[in-house]
Amino acid sequence: MSATLETAPTEYVEAGGIRFAYRRLGSKTGVPLVFMQHFTGTMDAWDPIVANSLAADRPVVIFNNAGVGTSGGKTPDNVDQMATDAENFINALGLGEVDLLGFSLGGFLAQVMAARSAVKVRKIILAGTAPKGGEEHLMEVVQDAFSKNAPDVRLPLFFPPSDASQAAARAFVARATVRKNDRDPESGEDVSNPQAASIIGWCAEQDPDHASLKAIKQPALIVHGSDDTMFPSINAYEMFKNMSTATLIIYPDSGHGALFQYPETFVAHVKTFLDA
Amino acid sequence: MSATLETAPTEYVEAGGIRFAYRRLGSKTGVPLVFMQHFTGTMDAWDPIVANSLAADRPVVIFNNAGVGTSGGKTPDNVDQMATDAENFINALGLGEVDLLGFSLGGFLAQVMAARSAVKVRKIILAGTAPKGGEEHLMEVVQDAFSKNAPDVRLPLFFPPSDASQAAARAFVARATVRKNDRDPESGEDVSNPQAASIIGWCAEQDPDHASLKAIKQPALIVHGSDDTMFPSINAYEMFKNMSTATLIIYPDSGHGALFQYPETFVAHVKTFLDA
Repeated sequence: MSATLETAPTEYVEAGGIRFAYRRLGSKTGVPLVFMQHFTGTMDAWDPIVANSLAADRPVVIFNNAGVGTSGGKTPDNVDQMATDAENFINALGLGEVDLLGFSLGGFLAQVMAARSAVKVRKIILAGTAPKGGEEHLMEVVQDAFSKNAPDVRLPLFFPPSDASQAAARAFVARATVRKNDRDPESGEDVSNPQAASIIGWCAEQDPDHASLKAIKQPALIVHGSDDTMFPSINAYEMFKNMSTATLIIYPDSGHGALFQYPETFVAHVKTFLDA
Repeated sequence: MSATLETAPTEYVEAGGIRFAYRRLGSKTGVPLVFMQHFTGTMDAWDPIVANSLAADRPVVIFNNAGVGTSGGKTPDNVDQMATDAENFINALGLGEVDLLGFSLGGFLAQVMAARSAVKVRKIILAGTAPKGGEEHLMEVVQDAFSKNAPDVRLPLFFPPSDASQAAARAFVARATVRKNDRDPESGEDVSNPQAASIIGWCAEQDPDHASLKAIKQPALIVHGSDDTMFPSINAYEMFKNMSTATLIIYPDSGHGALFQYPETFVAHVKTFLDA
């Protein structure tokens, strides 16, 4: 039996004075795919279908960045330091060349890491994310989602209100709450405050010529939801138009959590991209 | 040995007083995928990789619309009549429910046919195309491409000038010219003039609320090249934004012939879409 996101033991590695929690799935050979998570998300906030299906034919590494969940250290208040922490973690594990899957805030880190050489990055997947200077509505949509008192805040936050989307949303939440044993604790304000500052700061940083995007030379796959209220889909189109190596995919009737709404399709698209 | 685009015999069927030339590939069972071709293109202008790979697990039907290549009849000067001709052909073959792959001008037909019920359409793929009222530069880019005296006008017309794109372009042209026996004749002005009028007329037709797109209820896959000079990629994004059922995919460093530049990736994306 291979380990799954729900069953893999949490392991730890020390890097740059921080004890990082991580889980490894899939084969030992091949270019590892490292997942980088969204605002306040822990390892347990990933979709098991996405993690386990991608691990069917490649190594997958899931981790908590500094200050998050079961990792030590303090959550930085800027993307640059978060990227440095992720690079330290990847190098401490000795992963060598990696592929990166960055979702939302994690996609900011992937952009930074791909453009510099602390880690050798082969390909990047940018899901539900935005470029420097991008359009974000984090505080409004988070406050609005919490005001709805849904059973899980991700139901209104990550998925549009259509019946089909909300059904997919509930299925995602059910999958992502299967693990009970050795589960990451939910994030508190020591995570959400500096992460919110990082997101707002990244989108406030002006980069009118998109020099940051143009510095990315690796093949990139941009995946977005049609009706992402946090980072509107125009971000994805603008990123695509300013990257010479990017493929753009946007799904219908979907929001910030598009990759969890259509997990099988997303996995097929990621495999097609990584194996091309 | 199954038939391939290069080896399948040309067959004929009579419908609405017109003798249509067609070729059938792939299995007899499953929803047939009907290809609808670009400006001046015949059956032999499709990419064998695309046709044969899609035919590996479904019926594929390739045909010449009225007036084109080895088909009889006269090329209409409007999209609506072309769509009617295609519907007559599909019904004459008794195909029942179909999927449509419309490239460029063929994508206009697919939009019309999906929104009405002369043929039962399950899913549509819109490659390198534009909505009613879309942005087109047909005459300029065709004249510019012919002025380059390239060995094949599709090299400058369908592919950007980068080394990688032009290498892919030459490989496509080599694949698409393998067939010598029973090959369709090249189109003359009796095809290009009314087809040009149809394209220009379609894009001149104003549809500010995109009622035509909103009338399409089937799942749709929109595929486009990043640097399509004939129908700029903003057409694809605008179509996507005005369809509730569409997935958008845009490839990097590619032009009008993006589906022939990345044939394996395009086939994988189409299969993922049709099988979802």
